[in-house]
Amino acid sequence: MSTLIKNIHILTMDEEKTTYPDGYILIEGSDISSIGHMKDLPEKVKATEVIDGKQAIAMPGMINTHTHIGMIPFRSLGDDYPDRLRRFLFPLENECMTESLAYHSGKYAIAEMQLAGVTTFMDMYYFEDAVAKATDEMGSRAILGETVIDFPTCDTTEAYGGLDYARQFIPKWLNHELITPAIAPHATNTNSPEKLKEAARLAEYYQVPITMHVAEMDYEMAYFQEQNNLTPVGFLADIGILSERLVAAHCIHLSDEDIHILKKYNVKVAHCIGANTKSAKGVARVADLLKSEIPVGLGTDGPSSGNTLDLFTQMKLFANFHKTNLKDRAAFPAVEIVERATMGGAKVLGLEDKVGSLEIGKKADIVLVETDSVNMFPIFDPYAALVYSANASNVQDVFINGQRKVKQKQLNQENLKDLRRNLSEQMAAFATSAKKRL
Amino acid sequence: MSTLIKNIHILTMDEEKTTYPDGYILIEGSDISSIGHMKDLPEKVKATEVIDGKQAIAMPGMINTHTHIGMIPFRSLGDDYPDRLRRFLFPLENECMTESLAYHSGKYAIAEMQLAGVTTFMDMYYFEDAVAKATDEMGSRAILGETVIDFPTCDTTEAYGGLDYARQFIPKWLNHELITPAIAPHATNTNSPEKLKEAARLAEYYQVPITMHVAEMDYEMAYFQEQNNLTPVGFLADIGILSERLVAAHCIHLSDEDIHILKKYNVKVAHCIGANTKSAKGVARVADLLKSEIPVGLGTDGPSSGNTLDLFTQMKLFANFHKTNLKDRAAFPAVEIVERATMGGAKVLGLEDKVGSLEIGKKADIVLVETDSVNMFPIFDPYAALVYSANASNVQDVFINGQRKVKQKQLNQENLKDLRRNLSEQMAAFATSAKKRL
Repeated sequence: MSTLIKNIHILTMDEEKTTYPDGYILIEGSDISSIGHMKDLPEKVKATEVIDGKQAIAMPGMINTHTHIGMIPFRSLGDDYPDRLRRFLFPLENECMTESLAYHSGKYAIAEMQLAGVTTFMDMYYFEDAVAKATDEMGSRAILGETVIDFPTCDTTEAYGGLDYARQFIPKWLNHELITPAIAPHATNTNSPEKLKEAARLAEYYQVPITMHVAEMDYEMAYFQEQNNLTPVGFLADIGILSERLVAAHCIHLSDEDIHILKKYNVKVAHCIGANTKSAKGVARVADLLKSEIPVGLGTDGPSSGNTLDLFTQMKLFANFHKTNLKDRAAFPAVEIVERATMGGAKVLGLEDKVGSLEIGKKADIVLVETDSVNMFPIFDPYAALVYSANASNVQDVFINGQRKVKQKQLNQENLKDLRRNLSEQMAAFATSAKKRL
Repeated sequence: MSTLIKNIHILTMDEEKTTYPDGYILIEGSDISSIGHMKDLPEKVKATEVIDGKQAIAMPGMINTHTHIGMIPFRSLGDDYPDRLRRFLFPLENECMTESLAYHSGKYAIAEMQLAGVTTFMDMYYFEDAVAKATDEMGSRAILGETVIDFPTCDTTEAYGGLDYARQFIPKWLNHELITPAIAPHATNTNSPEKLKEAARLAEYYQVPITMHVAEMDYEMAYFQEQNNLTPVGFLADIGILSERLVAAHCIHLSDEDIHILKKYNVKVAHCIGANTKSAKGVARVADLLKSEIPVGLGTDGPSSGNTLDLFTQMKLFANFHKTNLKDRAAFPAVEIVERATMGGAKVLGLEDKVGSLEIGKKADIVLVETDSVNMFPIFDPYAALVYSANASNVQDVFINGQRKVKQKQLNQENLKDLRRNLSEQMAAFATSAKKRL
């Protein structure tokens, strides 16, 4: 199986930011086997399928470094309530989240990401085995972490049941081509130090990633301050669980010393600008993190928090928030923001050898963004068009691991109506209970 | 001619925020003649055309209170340069902007707004007569102001030539059904006090609106501070040109006293959150303006500044920036943000008796937003879906003054490819010169 995509404006996002304004990509099996200028396309290339890109922008599949794909049912529910987490999220999860609901929500959310050009994601939620099944069926690339928290929840009858769950879940999915299992302690202050250490040992034992909400909440900051005059990052360092395995989500509130510590232990950061600012939590110090050479990727957070799962929304919010906070319109030029959504995310997830850029030998995770829609003209700078003008609906074709997942803005191997109907059916009890709480 | 739209979720945006979750709207001629619950639809209604809305969200046409639609050619050109205005915008306008280019850019931009559900806009630019011709042909509702500035520019050979231009332009378009001519001094510091007063007298004489960039630029603030220890708003009050006729665009930098003055003179504010934050200029004090009962609408600014002409982008940025700045996730709940994009804008433009809400007797400026796309499920709160999840591509049907302008996401009376080709042809010299400056 081979696919030749021709007549495209390629942004490789490689180290040198090589572009081929009139280029081609050859996919063989799951890999990119050739890429370059159209004029250099070998005459004898034979491909099973040839796609005329019609001057679409070709970019690496985008990488969503933090989400909760089981949470589609919560979208648009009580967005503007002050304590939404404790009024809606925790109780509804306990009462109404089921394995089947997580599975169907997962499939729907993956469809949404594929349609938006997100080819890899890192998830943390409950029933992660069902999420993995959904991911496997949809054929996206993912790191999936089972959540561990200090109370009984939807998929366990005891506090910290996620640890037992993960002991089954991780070995089961260890050798999957596209899926990497992981462990996901919920947050710094919703696990005891002992259980955080146990989660870290589990990750170490299986050599898998660990992800956690870090320095996100005001009350989290206050808690560690009062407890022992520490920051959450300082606390994690103190208990000895910081490592290059850790993807720390949010990291909104960081001191200079915190940044120093994150760098020292090679921790990676998933930056969720949309969710963080919609909930008025603040803006993480991304410029300072990058100055310290700490990998930073973009995350949408769950569909209940950020309300979209696409990285176009995140790129636009990233640009406007960071330029404004730095009081510098020239800060983070568009190419650097596209880098956050691609290679930046790959480095956060430790997948930079496989994805994040379009280069020979890398996996064929490729997005074509059409330029026919009214918002995509003129294009003096394709990076600027992607960051400042484009939206998820401009995504035209998406390949993951060489498979065409989106064809002319439609799912190629699944039916969106079916996915929605299945999810909707599973949501009946959830919706009834949710409306009572409004 | 009458059109019945049925099976729609209507957000009227009237004073009481009345909704009809399963509703109908009857359009007769240019007006809304009936609206209500489907169960109350009179049996004997006869309509020339019947549209099944299939549970789309129906909302008032959105109102863009500040833009420069002649500037499509500048989009994605040098976005991240520090002094973009003087490096690209002013010189390229002088060198390459022509009446024909403004006209074709205008038509394209109006198409883009219609496709995004913007049915009314306020423009300020050059060759405004060509912009009016474009608006008339496209059938959008608009207030169009010819720019006055203290140097010769593309449509005049002398400084302040816009005043002479306006003396022709205003009476020519005074009695148009959809278009209101206006005068638009460029900014507080790019006109002499005498010429500002002359522009205000012209607006007064013809009883038309006046619009201007106010308190937008750091150097504008510094100039008035140094000159006479004043703010731009204080200066405008001093020279006596503040009135309810004035739509002040941006108003990023306001003192408490400025807000007091704006209220005293019934000035209205066009808030351009996207353009202001992309260029790192800051966030206007909208909560304080509204507390003082000063009308505030949303504006995209020109396609070169904000890069999109849709208000979905503005609503999302509005939510995240103002919630974050106020440190309150419950501030500006979604319904209030939809109000900014509709009735809020209508009040800014003095068109609240005609548009801004869906009510019997008002003009039939109506937008249907489909809920079939992947990002539009579930919907517990339609306002939240519009603000936090939707994008311009979700707009399905648009009516302006009773005319169907967008049908199933396509222009109904124009061909987008033709509009783009025409603009592209006119842009040849512009594009060549633009690329030389990069």
